Amino acid sequence: MAGHDRILYEVVGREDRRISPFCWRVRMALAHKGLECHFEPTRYTEKDKIAFSGQKLLPILVDFGEVVTDSWSIAKYIDENYYQERSLLLGGGTRFVSLWTDTQLQPVLARCIIKDLYDNLDPLDQEYFRVSREARYGKTIEEMHLERESNELNLKRVLTMIRELVRTQPFICGKAPAYADYIVFGAFQWARCVSPFKFLDDNDPIFAWRGRMIRQYGSLANTVPHYD
Amino acid sequence: MAGHDRILYEVVGREDRRISPFCWRVRMALAHKGLECHFEPTRYTEKDKIAFSGQKLLPILVDFGEVVTDSWSIAKYIDENYYQERSLLLGGGTRFVSLWTDTQLQPVLARCIIKDLYDNLDPLDQEYFRVSREARYGKTIEEMHLERESNELNLKRVLTMIRELVRTQPFICGKAPAYADYIVFGAFQWARCVSPFKFLDDNDPIFAWRGRMIRQYGSLANTVPHYD
Repeated sequence: MAGHDRILYEVVGREDRRISPFCWRVRMALAHKGLECHFEPTRYTEKDKIAFSGQKLLPILVDFGEVVTDSWSIAKYIDENYYQERSLLLGGGTRFVSLWTDTQLQPVLARCIIKDLYDNLDPLDQEYFRVSREARYGKTIEEMHLERESNELNLKRVLTMIRELVRTQPFICGKAPAYADYIVFGAFQWARCVSPFKFLDDNDPIFAWRGRMIRQYGSLANTVPHYD
Repeated sequence: MAGHDRILYEVVGREDRRISPFCWRVRMALAHKGLECHFEPTRYTEKDKIAFSGQKLLPILVDFGEVVTDSWSIAKYIDENYYQERSLLLGGGTRFVSLWTDTQLQPVLARCIIKDLYDNLDPLDQEYFRVSREARYGKTIEEMHLERESNELNLKRVLTMIRELVRTQPFICGKAPAYADYIVFGAFQWARCVSPFKFLDDNDPIFAWRGRMIRQYGSLANTVPHYD
């Protein structure tokens, strides 16, 4: 990675698809701060490539040689070290939004898109993904796919929380987006990078918010392969 | 109210019990900012007393003659007008925490304590409360009380979200409390002002957080009648 002052190691699937909600949180945060970055595609099973970080998870930020892991820690690092730019607003309830997204939104969304996610992996990663996810969810990928309809009902119930918020203000953080928006949008962008599954009506306030998020930072979210 | 520069009209029950989670949010926010205030007890049916505000809901803040209604608007007003003091951190995900507390935590907690709440009202307010709440929940107060056990299970499920947060950091907002903490604590303090119902184990991280919140600002939460 010589020649890059700042590198984000991101999970990649086939066709250069960027398939991690946590990596998207950081990508949006870097754009929020106006920070240039090289995005290094990393497959799930390329553990050797990230061994330097002393752990096995993505994203990993390398900023002028400093190695930072875990998306929340990376966001804090960026916010504290690049404080001249607009704050990511990590205080207040943002950690709560993170926990809600990790435990309520993403698991139920994962169940809806898991087969599409699997199909969009690099073939070299598919076996690892199948074994680890089927253990996590206690079901095969195909079984979860068959239950998409009931999972979609759960997803719609979970989304109620966000709908009310973006019905009355343009962004989750208020008049402008900040990290709480990137956390939730990370889940939506993850889905649209791997799946044509449509779970928002065009007249849903969440759909309009998602559109506003897609258009942020020169439509950053459209600069990678995605479905729409 | 002559002689008071700042007045918060609060819901009151029998024995001067302060029985509104929304009023507690504001009380804690005023303490956070170090602002002196007269707390004016107001019964649910004393609508004449607050007619000056042009609406029927509490809390109402009157700050040097300026009338502000709705707890979120009051918090914003305080934060913007008393910006010399530590911020309430209303940006980021705080609005999300507010919505979650309004729609997830408080309704299920209300079902658990509704009979105690009723019993702790001023008798002049009991008829109004019974009619409005039984219409809202579609059940009598006594029916809800009989279902406390199943409602308690729902409450414990909802509380999971906060537990994880305060297990890993002292306050919802991080190292120090701010408005997201006051929002959630408002619900707990509302409960302890009217009900002996114990739904937290002593070794629950939420119990420890609640203790930290009670001790804030000279144990403000203990300066009123409460159960413990």
